[in-house]
Amino acid sequence: MRSSQISPRKSPLHILVSNDDGIDAPGIFALVTSLKKIGNVTVVAPERQQSAVGHAITMNHPIRVKEYFHNGEFFGYAVDGTPADCVKIAIRSILKRKPDIVVSGINHGTNTAISVIYSGTVSAATEATLMKVPSLAISLATFTTPDFRYAAKFSMTMVKAVLGNGLPQGTLLNVNVPPISEQNIRGVKITRMGKSTWNDTFEARRDPANKEYFWLTGDLEVQDTEEDIDQVAVMNKFVSVTPIHYDLTNYDMLDELQKWKLKKSV
Amino acid sequence: MRSSQISPRKSPLHILVSNDDGIDAPGIFALVTSLKKIGNVTVVAPERQQSAVGHAITMNHPIRVKEYFHNGEFFGYAVDGTPADCVKIAIRSILKRKPDIVVSGINHGTNTAISVIYSGTVSAATEATLMKVPSLAISLATFTTPDFRYAAKFSMTMVKAVLGNGLPQGTLLNVNVPPISEQNIRGVKITRMGKSTWNDTFEARRDPANKEYFWLTGDLEVQDTEEDIDQVAVMNKFVSVTPIHYDLTNYDMLDELQKWKLKKSV
Repeated sequence: MRSSQISPRKSPLHILVSNDDGIDAPGIFALVTSLKKIGNVTVVAPERQQSAVGHAITMNHPIRVKEYFHNGEFFGYAVDGTPADCVKIAIRSILKRKPDIVVSGINHGTNTAISVIYSGTVSAATEATLMKVPSLAISLATFTTPDFRYAAKFSMTMVKAVLGNGLPQGTLLNVNVPPISEQNIRGVKITRMGKSTWNDTFEARRDPANKEYFWLTGDLEVQDTEEDIDQVAVMNKFVSVTPIHYDLTNYDMLDELQKWKLKKSV
Repeated sequence: MRSSQISPRKSPLHILVSNDDGIDAPGIFALVTSLKKIGNVTVVAPERQQSAVGHAITMNHPIRVKEYFHNGEFFGYAVDGTPADCVKIAIRSILKRKPDIVVSGINHGTNTAISVIYSGTVSAATEATLMKVPSLAISLATFTTPDFRYAAKFSMTMVKAVLGNGLPQGTLLNVNVPPISEQNIRGVKITRMGKSTWNDTFEARRDPANKEYFWLTGDLEVQDTEEDIDQVAVMNKFVSVTPIHYDLTNYDMLDELQKWKLKKSV
């Protein structure tokens, strides 16, 4: 079942853009500049940086929406919520009609392997998929000074590919671009989400009043080696494209669990 | 590959408990009271209610840990972070040795179908799984006045079952208990995660200064009908047990995506 197919358009392509680095991040600016070449772009993004929020939504307090200006020009709507909030409120309340596609990014930092489940960038795209709008998340795989130019250009390729081919319902594409120039990129690889996790730890510190506090720190510990794993593909200088869905059932375990013969009472 | 098997224990069973309703929620109190009958329990839970935080972790500000007392007695550690933070900091910094199992709950409210991806309760259990500790999330499927007694009792059954049978690495169990008395429960069903989503909307309101704000509201729109779907099982008065993992790859789409023949440049 396809949620979109290319067809002669009566109206111009309408693209909704969000991210998790915040509406003032260079990555979203690069993305919007690029996507404006192929369609009308509406930006609805978090007012503040929202990395590692996962698929959080705001239920316990109200949300405000402000107009955000960049160099004196209207750029988009800033929301004091999470990336998932942004996409939800954009589609439910801000936009007059559903967008043709949602693009989330360009994230400053890799969203591969286990990082996908913590990623606000991916969660914005997931929320779009839940609302039956095709979507993709795009990240630049570096934590140092970023150059978003190639990733921004490649986002146009991906938007056209998604609208041209269609995505199955409930599936989005998670794109990770190596932080190198276009001529050094070896190609595009279709990948699986890796199993690498973070070997993180909490640094215990003391505040000026000598009270203890903890700060999370750590690195992704690359445990995957196969070439068709997202993280490995990026390290090998390929753009990684992973089809992601949100059915978390471990189907392989269903039969095994039946054998446990669980009873309501012991 | 099993992450745990029952074996003659030299030391008593060590259970880590967390939740997303907060350390002062009745559900966690009922759970701890029950689990203390079968082992030593350490509680590390959010200081404040954290529902719908998804798999958020706190990276941009420090975390504090406080001792929390219930009726003058030490109950556990309160963390000003998310459920995932709690499990991470418990295992990395608070506990002297890894727990044998992590139990998250008892959540006041259903965590079935799409709610799983928003659920802080499930994310605490997921974080444990990432740290190679077997885990389960347990929720009471009601949003009205809860009676946690049967769910608390059933949590003992589940802990024994998980430790007795072992779980594959990267998999946790998501348990949902119908809000009815034990004699009315029809049994335990092994289920798949449903595809039902929320038909949510934002209520636009005005604050006292006449500024607009939005508040999320909505219901789960049950679209699933098959009896082995989590939400349907609970509605049919079965305890639902779903094996959940965090590999989000849509394997069915990998071949299809190859056919797109994506190029690095167009």
